[in-house]
Amino acid sequence: MSRERLTDAKSRRGQRRIITLTTDFGTADGYVAAMKGVILGINPDATVVDLTHEIRPQDIYQGAFVFGSTFEAFPPDTIHVVVVDPGVGSARRPIAVSTRSATFVAPDNGVLSWALRASEATEWPVQPRDLQLLRSVRAVVLDNPTYWRPRVSTTFHGRDIFAPVAAHLSRGVPLAELGSSTRTLCLFPVPRARLIAPGHLQGHVIHVDRFGNLITDITDADLDCFTAPTVRVGNVVMPRIVTHYATEAAATPKVLPLIGSSGFLELAVAHGSAAATLGLDVGAVVTVVDAGR
Amino acid sequence: MSRERLTDAKSRRGQRRIITLTTDFGTADGYVAAMKGVILGINPDATVVDLTHEIRPQDIYQGAFVFGSTFEAFPPDTIHVVVVDPGVGSARRPIAVSTRSATFVAPDNGVLSWALRASEATEWPVQPRDLQLLRSVRAVVLDNPTYWRPRVSTTFHGRDIFAPVAAHLSRGVPLAELGSSTRTLCLFPVPRARLIAPGHLQGHVIHVDRFGNLITDITDADLDCFTAPTVRVGNVVMPRIVTHYATEAAATPKVLPLIGSSGFLELAVAHGSAAATLGLDVGAVVTVVDAGR
Amino acid sequence: MSRERLTDAKSRRGQRRIITLTTDFGTADGYVAAMKGVILGINPDATVVDLTHEIRPQDIYQGAFVFGSTFEAFPPDTIHVVVVDPGVGSARRPIAVSTRSATFVAPDNGVLSWALRASEATEWPVQPRDLQLLRSVRAVVLDNPTYWRPRVSTTFHGRDIFAPVAAHLSRGVPLAELGSSTRTLCLFPVPRARLIAPGHLQGHVIHVDRFGNLITDITDADLDCFTAPTVRVGNVVMPRIVTHYATEAAATPKVLPLIGSSGFLELAVAHGSAAATLGLDVGAVVTVVDAGR
Repeated sequence: MSRERLTDAKSRRGQRRIITLTTDFGTADGYVAAMKGVILGINPDATVVDLTHEIRPQDIYQGAFVFGSTFEAFPPDTIHVVVVDPGVGSARRPIAVSTRSATFVAPDNGVLSWALRASEATEWPVQPRDLQLLRSVRAVVLDNPTYWRPRVSTTFHGRDIFAPVAAHLSRGVPLAELGSSTRTLCLFPVPRARLIAPGHLQGHVIHVDRFGNLITDITDADLDCFTAPTVRVGNVVMPRIVTHYATEAAATPKVLPLIGSSGFLELAVAHGSAAATLGLDVGAVVTVVDAGR
Repeated sequence: MSRERLTDAKSRRGQRRIITLTTDFGTADGYVAAMKGVILGINPDATVVDLTHEIRPQDIYQGAFVFGSTFEAFPPDTIHVVVVDPGVGSARRPIAVSTRSATFVAPDNGVLSWALRASEATEWPVQPRDLQLLRSVRAVVLDNPTYWRPRVSTTFHGRDIFAPVAAHLSRGVPLAELGSSTRTLCLFPVPRARLIAPGHLQGHVIHVDRFGNLITDITDADLDCFTAPTVRVGNVVMPRIVTHYATEAAATPKVLPLIGSSGFLELAVAHGSAAATLGLDVGAVVTVVDAGR
Repeated sequence: MSRERLTDAKSRRGQRRIITLTTDFGTADGYVAAMKGVILGINPDATVVDLTHEIRPQDIYQGAFVFGSTFEAFPPDTIHVVVVDPGVGSARRPIAVSTRSATFVAPDNGVLSWALRASEATEWPVQPRDLQLLRSVRAVVLDNPTYWRPRVSTTFHGRDIFAPVAAHLSRGVPLAELGSSTRTLCLFPVPRARLIAPGHLQGHVIHVDRFGNLITDITDADLDCFTAPTVRVGNVVMPRIVTHYATEAAATPKVLPLIGSSGFLELAVAHGSAAATLGLDVGAVVTVVDAGR
């Protein structure tokens, strides 16, 4: 199947669909390239884009957040393949899901939770659980081997199931062809800040990016009714939310709270790392108190 | 030459060939991008795919294995450029090789040994040697400067020879145009496990991947006649070969032997690193004994 | 705007322009992918190429050198987006610049200094300063929001301004449409070796690459009049400039001076790292004395 080629030039028109890849494979081995070889063997006109391959090995939560906070920059007819898959070869189901904003191909292990933002949680750390019904979502279990590679390994469904399925989708194969319809998906509740008292919001660090910025689960919208938000983390109190990294060039590294590019409150240090400055990592508590009350 | 552009839209049809790049250049410098700039300057319709750029600097053996165990996922008309080239600028020859499964452009230093799987070896560590004749292989020495960049540096043939040659191949220039035919290639014997006694197979770790999986030179086929294969490495004995990583969620990290996605026996630890758990690296001895005899 | 699609197949012809991306974003987060999603949403036929994303966070000087020594391998109609942008959201201007060799989209913070090679400096370390006039350069300040994303964050102009502007340029929007013309650009003087006495050239290490090669600001042309150049760094004296890395396989690691692929004198160690062998980094003094005088 990976060798299948389109020979009629005319039939290739309109198949320039984008396929993104998100994995924990890294780029030192040939695993990602093998997925691309399979995709381009089926649809030579696909535009394959790396979302990231540096999800921590088998970290479904990190994968779900990084993917979920990025994919909306792509056009809605994009096909997103997300393979963070510690359960490959076991009973976990391979799935494809279609919504108004994208089509997803992934293991059914929660890695699409942020993208589907299906639920609301208040507990940390989060735990996987089943969700009974997602409205305006069409989902199938990938149980039709017609669209797989002829030989499927037990350890590399990225190459043998997810890549060829995405490539066939990009050529116009309908979702329903790929397998049995399902109305349940395994999703975990995405972390959300919660109001623990009037004017007192408690959230957590959910991601540390390459710059050491600490990204929290507190959103722009959460702060709509705060007139004078004061951010606290440990003993550090930050009396106002600034708008950009270069705000203050203080002599000592200064932690700046700001609303980041995905709409989450983040803590940054200009020309430095907030994670290193504060000694914090994913899971740390961040609170916002309304000093204007 | 890198500035050459195709202007006749019609003549561009059918030139959407895939060109993969495998190097030890890393991605922090602009070396890989320079190769892509040269390729796209010659054939704007080439689809350039990174196989990997994280081969250990100048490690021909690792490059040969990672490339050789990945390239077959691509369609057979793919052109593969492999540049792990400690001898750049010296007497080592630049070559292009065409087989039924792919076209290769590389230095003639053994980096294609796994891909061409030309020989059978039993010794470790392996050493380069000449091979007299490869059947069903066409090979040329790249000695026709018409298809190079106008100025060739002595340190970056990836940009100045291999990239432009691959781009011209992708536009339909025949192999024979690129230089003199040759029937000898410098290849090293690829490592293979050997039967040291009836039902007693000895192999070695030949690669450690991003997950810490230890990949050996013992193949699926080697184990065909073993009725009850028991894997041993150091003092660790593994009584059976499992089918996937998530097989057992034991309290202590458990090393699982399984046949990986390229058909080699590998040792893995679910949610962990077998390399770290066992303290092993490339070259370690792995044996399989048939307990069923 | 990121959702804008071209529907008329005919109008898409000729829009297969190359857009390169150079950033300090790394590839572990989704930032680079978000830029690609925006670009491909506006021009699905753009060929997006990573130049590098591993510039040290906020290191404008390193970004300027790596970009400036690489971009000329691309065809002259390429659009280069360079985002090393510690001042994002502050008063620093976003700009687009067009020359005979390329079009650039970047913050006006000096990151284009090597590419525009506008000035000559002799001091180290270099400092930003304004340059009054660049001949044969057309430049605009990106102040026309028509070509931005509808909502612009204060922390991610790469996604919200630079990416969409580059995509619109690739579809044929003229430079003058993007904003107000400007004749001043903020550039820093690029480091250059200087003759401190007749036949005595003093330069500096300006970059350390992935192989540990030490790249200096001494150029091939600087050495034209040297009949017997002797290179000195610390106590190490190298009596001749060699032509390739594999020149000598000495028992002890030997530092080899050679002219690298971008025309700069570099120090290398065959099968090793010159940076580690010599214990040197960016800024180290390298001198060349003409022993033939």
